[in-house]
Amino acid sequence: MNSYSIALLPGDGIGPEVMREAEKVLAVIQRKFDLNLTLNQFDVGGAAIDKHGHALPEDTLKGCEQADAILFGSIGGPKWDSLPLDQRPERAALLKLRSHFDLFSNLRPAKIYPGLEALSPLRADIAASGFDVMVVRELTSGIYFGQPKGMAGEGEEEYAFDTMRYSRREIRRIAKIAFEAARLRGKKVTSVDKANVLVCSRLWREITEEVAKDYADVELEHIYIDNATMQLLRYPNQFDVMLCSNLFGDIISDECAMITGSMGLLPSASINAEGFGMYEPAGGSAPDIAGKGIANPIAQILSAAMLLRYSLGENSAAEAIEKAVQQALNDGYVTAELLSAERKNEAKTTAQVGDYIA
Amino acid sequence: MNSYSIALLPGDGIGPEVMREAEKVLAVIQRKFDLNLTLNQFDVGGAAIDKHGHALPEDTLKGCEQADAILFGSIGGPKWDSLPLDQRPERAALLKLRSHFDLFSNLRPAKIYPGLEALSPLRADIAASGFDVMVVRELTSGIYFGQPKGMAGEGEEEYAFDTMRYSRREIRRIAKIAFEAARLRGKKVTSVDKANVLVCSRLWREITEEVAKDYADVELEHIYIDNATMQLLRYPNQFDVMLCSNLFGDIISDECAMITGSMGLLPSASINAEGFGMYEPAGGSAPDIAGKGIANPIAQILSAAMLLRYSLGENSAAEAIEKAVQQALNDGYVTAELLSAERKNEAKTTAQVGDYIA
Ligand SMILES: CC(C)[C@H](C(=O)O)[C@@H](O)C(=O)O
Ligand SMILES: CC(C)[C@H](C(=O)O)[C@@H](O)C(=O)O
Repeated sequence: MNSYSIALLPGDGIGPEVMREAEKVLAVIQRKFDLNLTLNQFDVGGAAIDKHGHALPEDTLKGCEQADAILFGSIGGPKWDSLPLDQRPERAALLKLRSHFDLFSNLRPAKIYPGLEALSPLRADIAASGFDVMVVRELTSGIYFGQPKGMAGEGEEEYAFDTMRYSRREIRRIAKIAFEAARLRGKKVTSVDKANVLVCSRLWREITEEVAKDYADVELEHIYIDNATMQLLRYPNQFDVMLCSNLFGDIISDECAMITGSMGLLPSASINAEGFGMYEPAGGSAPDIAGKGIANPIAQILSAAMLLRYSLGENSAAEAIEKAVQQALNDGYVTAELLSAERKNEAKTTAQVGDYIA
Repeated sequence: MNSYSIALLPGDGIGPEVMREAEKVLAVIQRKFDLNLTLNQFDVGGAAIDKHGHALPEDTLKGCEQADAILFGSIGGPKWDSLPLDQRPERAALLKLRSHFDLFSNLRPAKIYPGLEALSPLRADIAASGFDVMVVRELTSGIYFGQPKGMAGEGEEEYAFDTMRYSRREIRRIAKIAFEAARLRGKKVTSVDKANVLVCSRLWREITEEVAKDYADVELEHIYIDNATMQLLRYPNQFDVMLCSNLFGDIISDECAMITGSMGLLPSASINAEGFGMYEPAGGSAPDIAGKGIANPIAQILSAAMLLRYSLGENSAAEAIEKAVQQALNDGYVTAELLSAERKNEAKTTAQVGDYIA
């Protein structure tokens, strides 16, 4: 019997309620696939600030270090928005976890599910042409972490500064991930940059072209970030894997998520070189709907599936979850935001969807 | 009789052919409004590299300095893409002109024209809800120009770096432009930033809030760039003026342009503190359709209208052009890309549209 320990970090907003549904599903998986899963829960984000005065308490970090993988909910909310930048949930917990575990490889799949085209905000004919993208985002470098970062000068000339920074090594390792991913998919990598303005992007282009030489079966294309934002709206089906630096990946992956129109279905993975990873829904903490039992738990449940696949190597368990989710979608056994106006009365609660999938 | 001199910089791709149509229109304006317009043409971009070895020859810069405003076409193309970053048309000419004349205020209006909703790549019900935005983009600072910028280190640890940088003064002056613009429009400013990650964005937020105090009649909202990219797709009509830093404005303004589905209609203005400005279409040089007589000249013509309004203060002349353009649109006297598939055979050429408007 394979034994694993998973750190659960539900966090804020809808985090705790969707995490509960993922736990249900993992409990079933454990029995069905004869796994021994130890799930340990820890405080993180605003909830941890309120309880311990810090968004990422020492205990939580230790718990994550001892685990085989992290299942993360979501963090943040208006309540903690006015804290100094370094203490806010996003920087103090999320970015800290990413850098502490060197989770440089962020995988954000986004697709329009067959049958759910009408949810896409794109024109019917464009949505019907299909959309199935894997955004591969670099997650531990770039302008998020580059030093120096701060303030200098005086009076009206006082200025803020941030540094965007990428080494050959950092670009190479994420580019490889993108090409590997493309090999298992549509065999095309579109690298997003701003090479007409940024030195970082010039190096990005140079290295992706070097890496491409080892993947003769995969096509490489470069696109400027501004143009990518446009092309995604008009010809979304031209893309397969989109390789992005940290900031550009933040923007592109959210645009892709919105294009699907079903953010509540999208999981994500953040993985390091050893396969250790943190898995979380693409959407945010959605404080406006928290506690109402209407949040879609599927993204959290699919994040658990990604965890099983990428960090634990339990592929059949991952597939079983994905199949069960597909079944719930086919059966229309879903939360309200996935239903058309006429069918809203058939909406299921967060717990009902979780039970059904479990 | 008011006398003005305008520097015409047609540039590359479709630049020269659409510029010709703007010249026709200006010739008529000159007679009708009793203006004395001196139009001097100069080489710029790839065309100037080919002829003079430099994307912004000394003569061109001098010509611009002596003019009251610049009417710019578009520059760049695959032919010059492999030049070193500093010699490429974009950096050597476009960014150079922006910084040389301190054209910090970039106005990029984008709207779905009534009757042209079907061109928008957004879902019919969303496009029908309306979209009319003015992107106010800071154009001479931020990561485009911040120093230092370069390469350091060795081997695989060699790294590229760019600096994002904003002073209080730089943020304040562009924020004021946004609030002034909002006053003449929908009285709402949405400031786009990434304040949960960037120090520059924190300062950006602080200053926009300070500036907002002088504009009690204008509402101020902050939004993260990733969320803005999403909201634009789902609820585009919530925005009026979008205030952005240089890089974020590049991305947001292109997304807005694509949302209209009629990029060939969108002008832009880049203005300095003295009202001197450079006016250009929002679209690029479109080398694929250059020379075929099918490019839409309207964005170039509306750029001339913006020039008359913002740099020359000739408001009635500007309005006359805008009215004539609206007439051409109403009459369906337009280039192919604005027509539905069944009506493509009614398409007019670049020159025909120019003549009609003139
Ligand atoms: C919360 C924020 C810091 C974060 C990011 O920008 O990376 C989020 O937007 C994301 O994409 O995971
Ligand atoms: C060509 C490029 C340098 C430029 C920019 O990024 O500013 C263009 O995209 C624009 O928006 O005017």
